[in-house]
Amino acid sequence: MSTPGLLGVLGGMGPLATIDFMHKVLDATEAHRDQDHIPIVTACIPQIPDRTAAFRGEGDSPLAAMIESGKLLAEAGASMIVVPCNTAHLWFEPLQAALGVPMLHLVDAALEDAVALAGRDARIGLLATDGTIASGLYVNRRAGNGQQIQWLLPTAREMVEWVMPGIAAVKAGDVARGTEFLQAAAAALGKRGAQAVILGCTEIPVVLHDGNSPVPVVDATAALARRCVSWSQQEREHAAQGG
Amino acid sequence: MSTPGLLGVLGGMGPLATIDFMHKVLDATEAHRDQDHIPIVTACIPQIPDRTAAFRGEGDSPLAAMIESGKLLAEAGASMIVVPCNTAHLWFEPLQAALGVPMLHLVDAALEDAVALAGRDARIGLLATDGTIASGLYVNRRAGNGQQIQWLLPTAREMVEWVMPGIAAVKAGDVARGTEFLQAAAAALGKRGAQAVILGCTEIPVVLHDGNSPVPVVDATAALARRCVSWSQQEREHAAQGG
Repeated sequence: MSTPGLLGVLGGMGPLATIDFMHKVLDATEAHRDQDHIPIVTACIPQIPDRTAAFRGEGDSPLAAMIESGKLLAEAGASMIVVPCNTAHLWFEPLQAALGVPMLHLVDAALEDAVALAGRDARIGLLATDGTIASGLYVNRRAGNGQQIQWLLPTAREMVEWVMPGIAAVKAGDVARGTEFLQAAAAALGKRGAQAVILGCTEIPVVLHDGNSPVPVVDATAALARRCVSWSQQEREHAAQGG
Repeated sequence: MSTPGLLGVLGGMGPLATIDFMHKVLDATEAHRDQDHIPIVTACIPQIPDRTAAFRGEGDSPLAAMIESGKLLAEAGASMIVVPCNTAHLWFEPLQAALGVPMLHLVDAALEDAVALAGRDARIGLLATDGTIASGLYVNRRAGNGQQIQWLLPTAREMVEWVMPGIAAVKAGDVARGTEFLQAAAAALGKRGAQAVILGCTEIPVVLHDGNSPVPVVDATAALARRCVSWSQQEREHAAQGG
């Protein structure tokens, strides 16, 4: 007997991003007591080959290990699986094919929020790691309903001087420096016409948010978390109605 | 094929305490990259009947739901299971019997740390919820190696005026008030001779720590997290040596 609306979180890439995502699921839930929160099973098994190294052709593919974690979640009864890691989405299609369980795509969630915020044919900026941007993960993904996104990316110089050092500063706990660099990168995108900026790396929303960003922001993992909560709540209501 | 040293976290009581425990596991790990962190599978399925209501005889037992979550972890390959919730430990023995998987007991971890800190025959104070204290969860548990603990508990008045409102203030996000009340409660235990105070409720270490407590503190869930990391690392080293 499986739990209705049981969400599977294929985590461990890295463990802190997994915990951060679970926090965002809680934040996205209207709850008055423990029992109001959605049921989650999480595989946080970080012994997965490095995604960025694999993308660069310098290391083993993470796919086999991701499939192993995913199967564990499917066998535990998860009827929807998500992966709170941007780079891991480079292996999304073969992973989903191997698991045969519905999955929500992180980039779809972010694009949907960005279009809702900035409108059709919007000019959307992207702040993410060098690997995420270079892989085309965001720019190659089509927004739903035939909407066309006009992408604005940081220049190589902005990446080297602001985005990458900003992300590194957050990882090292230097919030002031991280805020300053990432605000500068967002401002540059805004100056070139971005109506909203997608934060496509879990470190960035730690320091950049609508309260301090020069351009409205879309936190990709928070967008995914909200969709997970809606999905689980609908599944549980459906089950409660004897569906 | 199961993952060596895979820790099972039977969570959801509540979800925030589960995430907090996962954070403490990360904090307790010497890691330079994702792959250095221990593998965890977490069942955060909060549809478990309220533990405090059940203890008071006012609600269903949570045992059946806890066994269901625990079996899910065992089937996922967890070879050690822990429950990051004090009150849930009132059902520890029947849970362990039903699962047949080794489990680490939260109170044992806390008692071991308290004795290591304050010595044999130490006078140990306890700060926890009314239910945890009234259940005898801590005072009935025997410390290892024949050590005898002299317990010091808050008075009913201290519980009503400081401990319970302090915990409620932390839950409501009022850190200043929570700190003031819980410092006062710790100071009262220190005045009566406590050489260390066990923080037996996940909300308390949010505001009380060795940097601001009038008496040295032992964070029970952090003590459990450290033991989990040691256990997993030993299992993985053993497996790597072809054990």
